[in-house]
Amino acid sequence: MKHIEIINGPNLNLTGIREPEVYGHTTMEEMVTGLRERFPEVEIGYYQSNIEGEIIDRLQAVGFSADGIVLNAGGYSHTSVAIHDAIAAISTPVIEVHISNIYAREEYRRHSLLSDACRGVICGLGLDGYRFAIEALMSLGEEK
Amino acid sequence: MKHIEIINGPNLNLTGIREPEVYGHTTMEEMVTGLRERFPEVEIGYYQSNIEGEIIDRLQAVGFSADGIVLNAGGYSHTSVAIHDAIAAISTPVIEVHISNIYAREEYRRHSLLSDACRGVICGLGLDGYRFAIEALMSLGEEK
Amino acid sequence: MKHIEIINGPNLNLTGIREPEVYGHTTMEEMVTGLRERFPEVEIGYYQSNIEGEIIDRLQAVGFSADGIVLNAGGYSHTSVAIHDAIAAISTPVIEVHISNIYAREEYRRHSLLSDACRGVICGLGLDGYRFAIEALMSLGEEK
Amino acid sequence: MKHIEIINGPNLNLTGIREPEVYGHTTMEEMVTGLRERFPEVEIGYYQSNIEGEIIDRLQAVGFSADGIVLNAGGYSHTSVAIHDAIAAISTPVIEVHISNIYAREEYRRHSLLSDACRGVICGLGLDGYRFAIEALMSLGEEK
Amino acid sequence: MKHIEIINGPNLNLTGIREPEVYGHTTMEEMVTGLRERFPEVEIGYYQSNIEGEIIDRLQAVGFSADGIVLNAGGYSHTSVAIHDAIAAISTPVIEVHISNIYAREEYRRHSLLSDACRGVICGLGLDGYRFAIEALMSLGEEK
Amino acid sequence: MKHIEIINGPNLNLTGIREPEVYGHTTMEEMVTGLRERFPEVEIGYYQSNIEGEIIDRLQAVGFSADGIVLNAGGYSHTSVAIHDAIAAISTPVIEVHISNIYAREEYRRHSLLSDACRGVICGLGLDGYRFAIEALMSLGEEK
Amino acid sequence: MKHIEIINGPNLNLTGIREPEVYGHTTMEEMVTGLRERFPEVEIGYYQSNIEGEIIDRLQAVGFSADGIVLNAGGYSHTSVAIHDAIAAISTPVIEVHISNIYAREEYRRHSLLSDACRGVICGLGLDGYRFAIEALMSLGEEK
Amino acid sequence: MKHIEIINGPNLNLTGIREPEVYGHTTMEEMVTGLRERFPEVEIGYYQSNIEGEIIDRLQAVGFSADGIVLNAGGYSHTSVAIHDAIAAISTPVIEVHISNIYAREEYRRHSLLSDACRGVICGLGLDGYRFAIEALMSLGEEK
Amino acid sequence: MKHIEIINGPNLNLTGIREPEVYGHTTMEEMVTGLRERFPEVEIGYYQSNIEGEIIDRLQAVGFSADGIVLNAGGYSHTSVAIHDAIAAISTPVIEVHISNIYAREEYRRHSLLSDACRGVICGLGLDGYRFAIEALMSLGEEK
Amino acid sequence: MKHIEIINGPNLNLTGIREPEVYGHTTMEEMVTGLRERFPEVEIGYYQSNIEGEIIDRLQAVGFSADGIVLNAGGYSHTSVAIHDAIAAISTPVIEVHISNIYAREEYRRHSLLSDACRGVICGLGLDGYRFAIEALMSLGEEK
Amino acid sequence: MKHIEIINGPNLNLTGIREPEVYGHTTMEEMVTGLRERFPEVEIGYYQSNIEGEIIDRLQAVGFSADGIVLNAGGYSHTSVAIHDAIAAISTPVIEVHISNIYAREEYRRHSLLSDACRGVICGLGLDGYRFAIEALMSLGEEK
Amino acid sequence: MKHIEIINGPNLNLTGIREPEVYGHTTMEEMVTGLRERFPEVEIGYYQSNIEGEIIDRLQAVGFSADGIVLNAGGYSHTSVAIHDAIAAISTPVIEVHISNIYAREEYRRHSLLSDACRGVICGLGLDGYRFAIEALMSLGEEK
Repeated sequence: MKHIEIINGPNLNLTGIREPEVYGHTTMEEMVTGLRERFPEVEIGYYQSNIEGEIIDRLQAVGFSADGIVLNAGGYSHTSVAIHDAIAAISTPVIEVHISNIYAREEYRRHSLLSDACRGVICGLGLDGYRFAIEALMSLGEEK
Repeated sequence: MKHIEIINGPNLNLTGIREPEVYGHTTMEEMVTGLRERFPEVEIGYYQSNIEGEIIDRLQAVGFSADGIVLNAGGYSHTSVAIHDAIAAISTPVIEVHISNIYAREEYRRHSLLSDACRGVICGLGLDGYRFAIEALMSLGEEK
Repeated sequence: MKHIEIINGPNLNLTGIREPEVYGHTTMEEMVTGLRERFPEVEIGYYQSNIEGEIIDRLQAVGFSADGIVLNAGGYSHTSVAIHDAIAAISTPVIEVHISNIYAREEYRRHSLLSDACRGVICGLGLDGYRFAIEALMSLGEEK
Repeated sequence: MKHIEIINGPNLNLTGIREPEVYGHTTMEEMVTGLRERFPEVEIGYYQSNIEGEIIDRLQAVGFSADGIVLNAGGYSHTSVAIHDAIAAISTPVIEVHISNIYAREEYRRHSLLSDACRGVICGLGLDGYRFAIEALMSLGEEK
Repeated sequence: MKHIEIINGPNLNLTGIREPEVYGHTTMEEMVTGLRERFPEVEIGYYQSNIEGEIIDRLQAVGFSADGIVLNAGGYSHTSVAIHDAIAAISTPVIEVHISNIYAREEYRRHSLLSDACRGVICGLGLDGYRFAIEALMSLGEEK
Repeated sequence: MKHIEIINGPNLNLTGIREPEVYGHTTMEEMVTGLRERFPEVEIGYYQSNIEGEIIDRLQAVGFSADGIVLNAGGYSHTSVAIHDAIAAISTPVIEVHISNIYAREEYRRHSLLSDACRGVICGLGLDGYRFAIEALMSLGEEK
Repeated sequence: MKHIEIINGPNLNLTGIREPEVYGHTTMEEMVTGLRERFPEVEIGYYQSNIEGEIIDRLQAVGFSADGIVLNAGGYSHTSVAIHDAIAAISTPVIEVHISNIYAREEYRRHSLLSDACRGVICGLGLDGYRFAIEALMSLGEEK
Repeated sequence: MKHIEIINGPNLNLTGIREPEVYGHTTMEEMVTGLRERFPEVEIGYYQSNIEGEIIDRLQAVGFSADGIVLNAGGYSHTSVAIHDAIAAISTPVIEVHISNIYAREEYRRHSLLSDACRGVICGLGLDGYRFAIEALMSLGEEK
Repeated sequence: MKHIEIINGPNLNLTGIREPEVYGHTTMEEMVTGLRERFPEVEIGYYQSNIEGEIIDRLQAVGFSADGIVLNAGGYSHTSVAIHDAIAAISTPVIEVHISNIYAREEYRRHSLLSDACRGVICGLGLDGYRFAIEALMSLGEEK
Repeated sequence: MKHIEIINGPNLNLTGIREPEVYGHTTMEEMVTGLRERFPEVEIGYYQSNIEGEIIDRLQAVGFSADGIVLNAGGYSHTSVAIHDAIAAISTPVIEVHISNIYAREEYRRHSLLSDACRGVICGLGLDGYRFAIEALMSLGEEK
Repeated sequence: MKHIEIINGPNLNLTGIREPEVYGHTTMEEMVTGLRERFPEVEIGYYQSNIEGEIIDRLQAVGFSADGIVLNAGGYSHTSVAIHDAIAAISTPVIEVHISNIYAREEYRRHSLLSDACRGVICGLGLDGYRFAIEALMSLGEEK
Repeated sequence: MKHIEIINGPNLNLTGIREPEVYGHTTMEEMVTGLRERFPEVEIGYYQSNIEGEIIDRLQAVGFSADGIVLNAGGYSHTSVAIHDAIAAISTPVIEVHISNIYAREEYRRHSLLSDACRGVICGLGLDGYRFAIEALMSLGEEK
């Protein structure tokens, strides 16, 4: 059975609660439940932390055995060389997801330091981005 | 029946021919055929031009009637204020797709001028990006 | 009889249709009709294209015989060295017009590459800008 | 009777005297006389100062009662946040005028800090720019 | 008896009148009256000018005898090396106050040239900022 | 009873110990004791962590129920998009405090990424800044 | 027989007509005639367009069969990522030519976006640059 | 008899009083007295103002009749396009003087906006700089 | 007995495992064992964490008693003002070490924010850098 | 008999020895011999130095008598204002040559400080660039 | 007897020969002769070199014994950290001289890297600048 | 017997003499003597020059035969593309040394252009840096 891990960074635990007109009313827990139902053939792990280093810990913990990682590092996307290095150091492919369209926001939020170490980037498609990322990671697996 | 238009910019007519180790062996014609088979309930239009203004012409022509546009503006993504304005002027939602991970390439290629006028961006997922974009545009339609 | 040419760039064919709260309800056709009535002693040509090179073609075609050119190059104003060179190469004086106040908009839209090759610039005065430009071009003619 | 105020900034009192090959031989006094003859239905005020703060004083003094202000802030256009704030604070619409084409001059002179607070900008059309600005302010009044 | 001088820069004479939803309905005169009541043991001077050099004149006039200066230089805060030098030249400590949160505004307004010559900065706390500045200046006096 | 939380970031646990000639001899514990005595009608919470994500945890924990937060994020003030997002996500108003005048220090320390998400900023007034922040937060409460 | 294609960009059709004191009196047609006489063993194609995308079309059309391309992309040299991509996508070697010394001109004209995708660059040597480019392309062919 | 005017900008009235370890103990009045004694054949005028526009007023007043101007515009040297324009507009040659070595000071103080409109610049030589400037202006006069 | 602490930042726990062609096959545990054998007269502590704030915790814990600290902060070296402040706050001298030559890598990795607070920097010398740092810290001790 | 001087800068004495896969196997001595055979009607001088000032000495020594100079200043091309000034000071025309395509290399190597003082630039055409430069210098001579 | 050394950098040996309309007709030899006559009480040394390091050698040779150095480092003024370091290392005071007004020239020539290590700067006053520098150095000696 | 060459750049011949409180009292000659005693099994060459090109000459002279080079290029480290190229052209490994911590100094001194062509960098460790560099070069030799 395949294993895909979703890793969420700071403040994403508030999804569904804060600014629902922007982020919608679905919580991350509901989304994960929905994804597990949609992809019964995949073991979908879920991890969230507000702490940069714990995201690195998690990337290292699953990054040599999982088949794919969906990473939304939130605010750390724009500043963390250390998470970038962790993505580059592990062997599992990572797809970066952003719920909103970061390129239509503040200047300092338009560049993700992580993107060049990831396989691909999906942004602005809401929570559907997580679903597409899982599908893309699964077809990566098939390819090889 | 829904209508989704794929619009490709400069040099994308060479996909499948140039640098197949990077872009794969599938041509755009083969990809479109595959997408039409996969989504029989959608009318999938296809347009390619190397000319910036013709892409604007096409965006204007379908941009008030189609249900969605998948746009890969190639090299114009990084320089065209005019295409940006066309996306902003039309009412059909647009999703930007890039086959390779532009954020892992040359400095001047890491920023797309178009992204902030689009609904979302998918990049680095190969030709699958076009498929995900169609799915996302269809679920946008359902939402409302 | 004097000949003044109005040349409009990309997306200006949508004036009166898109964002009427910003650009008003008058179409370019209506404006040109109005100007021809107001200035019966002038032959007022009108040309629009979404294609950068066709704007250059037009500048070259009328730029050695017309008495004045009113140019609103739209999105190309901010990126086109080639249109700049065409303005510099022809002998007819050119006045640059922008309907909205470009200096109060996005960063990349605050600078027009064309301005230094033009006689003058009028912006933010709505469609009246075209009228003032024609008047200014006519008084240039009188001067000499 | 309508009231439109012309406010000129530093060194514009020398117009007609300094560099006549650039600025022409008409003095500001002559221009104002000409404008008053041309627009007998308008009360045209005229004020000039080399002192930044006095320009602000004047903007405040007429900026809640006049129907329009034509402002050529000269060298302060490129550096004065304080004049910008005064324009934004008053209710009378302001049109910025420059006699020469500032976009064809030194780097630091190509950007006016004031433009985004004004209704529009006219530059490079010589003293005619003042006339067009008055016309534009009058048609603004009619609009509403 | 202690002497603390409040010096206000350009456009602050309009406080309470312009944009009351941002700056409130209290005028500077009312605020000063309130502060004099609150701090009867302090002589509170008040000075306002739209002219940069007059602010320097005032800083020099009170800057060797007063016990503290509360300075809100308005738009000059972002451009005036000369006011900066006056603050550095005098011996009275100065606290910089801004009514609104300048760091949440336009790019060119986020940096005050004066701050490094002042004792401290208070911004975004409305007219209360003046009160806190007086309290801070008084406890500075006690310290020594 | 009102609840105001003081949150201190990295190295602020050393206050009173390191560089006393700059930061004084008062420890944070002593300051908090003093503030609790001064404001007996307020419940003053105190939290310090060197870990960026724990500061976010704390902001989320108290940020929907407390009446105000006084935040001195130390070195994270200049680099943390993630703390910025947490401040923006919560409903409790936050006032940023810095003990020293950051604008008179090294280049990279002169800009706080957090300021635009806060109500206001107080800096350079020593430990008194915390007291003024509490007073300001209390009067915010009264306002509404 | 070898085939070398000369591709000229915007405004180069005016060579020999505009600014002859800078560009000389020879037209492009005369130059091509001269080159065909000088190199009878080479088939020399000639193409000019003011339209960016047509230059790309031409590069693609000859770029897999010709032995060499001499490209003077005029104003597009400084802005076109799309022409850059076309050069990189084709297999025929390209040499970039500029008639005047672009490095001695305006700031924005000193950098060609195309140069790094070309084999070499010749500039400032007038129309002779085209001749040297043909010679260089021919000796490239001999090498291999 | 020759006429040379010394014009001093903001805060220079404090010379000899503030920071004597940097600027020395000589006041401007004493210096001017000394210079008048040293150059009995020259009428040496002296003017000081803290107000930018009054410096412009003075430059205009003497700038068409005096034989030379020695200008130390203090803090306005680094920000005033308007004083720059006044220097360029008048016919009397101007030499810029700074008492201290501005190139060894803060970043924003290392560039004078005025220098390119002046004949020359002397800085870091203390009050002697005024003397050398007068000598240089006198030898300019002799030249012609 | 002297005490020198080695503190390693994020991803350095993977040394010897990831990219051995770059970083070699020696793990950090093996290196520390080797160093303890080489320097029996020194107590060599070892600490690693992926969490920025825990590195600060550790610097504070040993930074007033140890004789020296060897710090390789990995990806945090390029972004952490907070670690910089911790180094500046403690009294133990710190030497910064990087295994690879960071100056030959990506732009954002060529500058360490920490260097100016450290005694010295060693980079590009592989694991030997740790040894040299210990020797240098020991001779610092001897000096005084 | 005409005299053309070839001047080579630092490290070019290693051509043919270092990195032959980039620079080929021909040494500079062999190239010069070949050029002398090819152009028997020209006296071809050759000079190489690693010392910036000696290149200036040589430019001055031949720069008023020779008919042309071919200059490859190697690494000094990117940093030497002094060589730039020497080229501008002499009367002999100079053509700049680079063996490799500098525009396809590191950022700091893409701009030559010398180009604007030279007649033209040839780069990326290998040692053939020297030959073309000689031909161009000879046809310059014929022109006049 | 006092000893003042004049050190001239690259291309200054051509003064009086190149561009006499800019630099005048006086050669450096003539100027030095004139200065020796004017200041018979001073031993005036003269040294010129086009080689950066030889200027450093000379600065070191006289920089611990001479009473003053007048340095015009020509093109090296704008690029040489090494000459800057030599000035800082020696004990003799140095005054920087430029014949023309460097602040009115090309962008890259407006900043001298040397100025902050010198006592003062004189520029734009022609050869008179050397004379004033000698006088200033002599009065420095008297001061102490 | 191994051969390691120490090459020192401009002003390093003054070490031990200038600013001994910064650089210590040891001269370079004393240091080299000490190193030769410490490493009797190595032939340690020593070379110093103030001339950029002579440093290149020396790098070329020993750079194909020596076993290692210790390079402290002083002020040239920050500006010399030519020395960078020499390091890249030779086959002997080079380690860059700086006596003081350049990262804690002026902005323009914080970046060495040479570092990316060297094996490693040691800075801020005083003259010990030379010793560590020799040790590192010796263990490089052992490795292979």
